[in-house]
Amino acid sequence: MIYRKKDFPVSKIRRFLEPGPIVLVSSAWKGERNIMTMGWHMVMGFEPSLIGCYIWDENHSFDMIRKSKECVINIPTKDLAATVVSIGNSSGRDIDKFAEFRLTAERAAAVGAPLIHECYANFECKLVDSSLINKYNLFVLEVVKAHAATSPRFPKTIHYRGDGVFMISGENTSRFRAKFKPENL
Amino acid sequence: MIYRKKDFPVSKIRRFLEPGPIVLVSSAWKGERNIMTMGWHMVMGFEPSLIGCYIWDENHSFDMIRKSKECVINIPTKDLAATVVSIGNSSGRDIDKFAEFRLTAERAAAVGAPLIHECYANFECKLVDSSLINKYNLFVLEVVKAHAATSPRFPKTIHYRGDGVFMISGENTSRFRAKFKPENL
Repeated sequence: MIYRKKDFPVSKIRRFLEPGPIVLVSSAWKGERNIMTMGWHMVMGFEPSLIGCYIWDENHSFDMIRKSKECVINIPTKDLAATVVSIGNSSGRDIDKFAEFRLTAERAAAVGAPLIHECYANFECKLVDSSLINKYNLFVLEVVKAHAATSPRFPKTIHYRGDGVFMISGENTSRFRAKFKPENL
Repeated sequence: MIYRKKDFPVSKIRRFLEPGPIVLVSSAWKGERNIMTMGWHMVMGFEPSLIGCYIWDENHSFDMIRKSKECVINIPTKDLAATVVSIGNSSGRDIDKFAEFRLTAERAAAVGAPLIHECYANFECKLVDSSLINKYNLFVLEVVKAHAATSPRFPKTIHYRGDGVFMISGENTSRFRAKFKPENL
């Protein structure tokens, strides 16, 4: 699917990451580009907008992100589920995943890594703390620029349940909204 | 809802956390007990079974978990959504949340913190690394014992989209399972 996107406040991107979707991480280093599928990430702040990501050191992207100190976190939707699996099953050592899976690499505004045009949202990230990579494979990223589709309001995101099962995001409800304290929204 | 649970392998609890549900964290310290609502967490390994959790230092649970070095991560389902909001809106400084919200504190096997009986699953955790608390509010926990309901197979978990909107977990599909490499399941 091709989404129409606009700039999105980096302090609010947790709206898309907090529900726990599988994401695609794109990177570039020395003329090479790559994409990996990632399920282990968490919001760690919103001003600045920090994200913690666990990346296996056996992934080809591991060194590309560590060395370039940049990447893009892309949010794929249900229509890309088969591609998400194929990306996770293959290695950038062997193929150019953009070409192989017919994804469009789009120039980012603030980083050298490309955006994946077909995704619902794209978060341009800088690696701001590499001190936890050796011990925990944990990359602390700051989102410096965000792009998000305006429609649909709630994307059908892909969530991994293990053992080859995906959960597709379901019903969205604001019927508990009145119960929230304003500062907890 | 009351679930029938059995022991569950700690190395597989990522199945319940990776899709990104809101969780309830229960703790105990010096005769006091508490519950907090938590949305920022990530899987950081499965052998040992590690979870990273971001906890605000203004939460009453922050010190209880830091000092007792233990807690329980409980997975609530859709029927508890209103309670999850109320727990997030109140402080353990003022009330006993188990009593206030009529939740049953159940004795854990390996930690002093209580399980929440009404939740779908309960993961007993030890704080194994407190060195990132000061800088990132990041608690690195190891799941040492897990309990999970046997039915339904896929719980209707609660996911937070920000701005008072919850997403309830949707369709589960294994139709892409054949595409997975065995080692990626």
